[in-house]
Amino acid sequence: MAKEKLLMTPGPTMIPSSVLEIMSRQIIHHRTAAFEATYKGVEEDLKLLYQTKNMVLMFASSGTGAMESAVANLFCPGDKVLVVSIGSFGERFGEICKVYGLDVVKLSYEWGEAADVNQIKDILDNDIKKEIRAIFITHNETSTGVTNDIEAVGKLTKGTDRLLIIDAISSMGGLELKTDEWGLDVVVTGSQKGLMCPPGLAYASVSDKAWAACERSTLPKFYFDYKKFKKGFLGQGQNPPFTPAVSLILGQAEALRIMKEEGFQNVYDRHRKLALATQAGVMAMGLELFATKEISSFIITAVKAPEGIEIGKVIKTMNQKYDIIVAGGQKHLKGKIFRIGHCGYVDRFDLMRGFSALELALSENGYKVEPGVGIAAVQKSLAE
Amino acid sequence: MAKEKLLMTPGPTMIPSSVLEIMSRQIIHHRTAAFEATYKGVEEDLKLLYQTKNMVLMFASSGTGAMESAVANLFCPGDKVLVVSIGSFGERFGEICKVYGLDVVKLSYEWGEAADVNQIKDILDNDIKKEIRAIFITHNETSTGVTNDIEAVGKLTKGTDRLLIIDAISSMGGLELKTDEWGLDVVVTGSQKGLMCPPGLAYASVSDKAWAACERSTLPKFYFDYKKFKKGFLGQGQNPPFTPAVSLILGQAEALRIMKEEGFQNVYDRHRKLALATQAGVMAMGLELFATKEISSFIITAVKAPEGIEIGKVIKTMNQKYDIIVAGGQKHLKGKIFRIGHCGYVDRFDLMRGFSALELALSENGYKVEPGVGIAAVQKSLAE
Repeated sequence: MAKEKLLMTPGPTMIPSSVLEIMSRQIIHHRTAAFEATYKGVEEDLKLLYQTKNMVLMFASSGTGAMESAVANLFCPGDKVLVVSIGSFGERFGEICKVYGLDVVKLSYEWGEAADVNQIKDILDNDIKKEIRAIFITHNETSTGVTNDIEAVGKLTKGTDRLLIIDAISSMGGLELKTDEWGLDVVVTGSQKGLMCPPGLAYASVSDKAWAACERSTLPKFYFDYKKFKKGFLGQGQNPPFTPAVSLILGQAEALRIMKEEGFQNVYDRHRKLALATQAGVMAMGLELFATKEISSFIITAVKAPEGIEIGKVIKTMNQKYDIIVAGGQKHLKGKIFRIGHCGYVDRFDLMRGFSALELALSENGYKVEPGVGIAAVQKSLAE
Repeated sequence: MAKEKLLMTPGPTMIPSSVLEIMSRQIIHHRTAAFEATYKGVEEDLKLLYQTKNMVLMFASSGTGAMESAVANLFCPGDKVLVVSIGSFGERFGEICKVYGLDVVKLSYEWGEAADVNQIKDILDNDIKKEIRAIFITHNETSTGVTNDIEAVGKLTKGTDRLLIIDAISSMGGLELKTDEWGLDVVVTGSQKGLMCPPGLAYASVSDKAWAACERSTLPKFYFDYKKFKKGFLGQGQNPPFTPAVSLILGQAEALRIMKEEGFQNVYDRHRKLALATQAGVMAMGLELFATKEISSFIITAVKAPEGIEIGKVIKTMNQKYDIIVAGGQKHLKGKIFRIGHCGYVDRFDLMRGFSALELALSENGYKVEPGVGIAAVQKSLAE
């Protein structure tokens, strides 16, 4: 017997059964009052989650589509922007900006580090002509398990002419983000991580400052055109300009209902506690965190592969023998780290299952570990 | 008691229950052998359906995203293209081309007419310098219920340097399209019409000639970048570059299995018979087809609103009282036509239900119709 796979990955994450059930109902038409009410409800709930009064646009796409939307909608060719990169997804923002012909100032960090806000400040301060129109930065870098201090970056741009664009694809729903208070102009995320839905939906909040930038922008866009979403279908508002991913929207409505029922603050607390327990568990097993504890993500924990152990085999054992999926490292980190996701629909007992399997898989692949030492540390941490 | 709504709309269309069931299973991870096999299988089945050896790229988006992809991937600013428009979706192709700075030659027809292939030929013949690089044309125009003769258009471009780009969003799976034999360079479609899935997936086949155009193209694109899909995730092929809409792909695999089981030719025959029966039914009720019979679509039948009858009220009665959704007219056709979809997961008994409701709703809104006359004509037509 094999149980269904437990995904402890950076996404997709596990889906609550009531969400799955709703998506299994017969399809409904999107140009109807019933669907429009649900659609509007999802946007309202997303605004609560985002802590914003801004519109939150909903695209049928994965998160990268929403990242691209922020570039295509707000800028003109040759615009200078600052892209802060601490890993794979920061790199992606930079690539998109280059594809669209922006003049990219890149501030890159070693993978495993967080952005130094003072360095960002210095770059802005030295930009005397105020040519830098925007900062692009990742909230939670899933490739390295590191979280950036977005509140601090917000202080540099709030109330200025500069835009702040946040990739919150893996953080939204797991880490608190105060969109309006921190002055975040565009915040993009996706359905398949903290938002407990299948992949296929992406969201973008748009501030007044960002809407003004849309008016100036000359870059081509159509499917992701913010102004089309503001206008709505046939200019009547309410409804998206293009056929939405109906079943996923209905699932998202239910997932947001579950999150509201728990309370967003409780959701964040749960993520924090699970992350600290994961850190305690891996350290008790003699493993090392990839990033320092201070910047380690509450969404996903990156762990150094122990010396002499083929971590790819450990990951394979966990999947094939124990039906638990954790992620390896990407690009130059392949073979050097593994990543345990604890994001979205995850509770303490999922961690127990995960750590039980991790102990077994490590042990079976040559790493000496006392049975139970990881799990016990997780249990202990959660009791604190 | 209200039964679940029967969608007789141009999309979304009804979903088979086995497709719904598969989408209700717990999510699986997309970077796994199990998902990759399904993903590859969907592409292979799409190739059979498309009748092509070309790659068929799969996007998490609605059909408009795939339409945009054809513009952004194949052209440079200022390129001259011919856009043939017979309705709302032909207009959309033109708008996208303009947004991307193409030099658009527009050949427009009255809504309700089909494109005249001789006029297309004349335009190409008069383009002595061969500046026109491509033709954009809609296969089945859902806004008017008219089908264009794509085979004939293909004869004008096959074996030449010109590209032929087809919007087959509403036709694929309902009307036969011989992608390779007819020389179609990019054919875009979506999951939510003939393909019997929820909205959220879009597809594009890409010919060798189109791949060559990609190499030349300088327009910006990222999320829909064909070359990224050819390369695959981290350059390893097989898997999409960005997180796919996992649950929808699994649903699409099952829907394609059902279509193959019926046999694609039988699927097309069913659509044709249902369309002819629909035409017979409305005419027996004294209603008029919007387009001439020769060009009337086998996917969706557009019918003129009878004089003196508020067709919006008829549509509302069908929805609210009889739980059957048909579509009204778009833009200047609003109030002047209604459209009965018979696309995808539809059989003769759905038509019976639909015509029964249509007779009732028309009658209740002031149109005199002998009870049973429409249904009997449908039944008779299907018996032929």
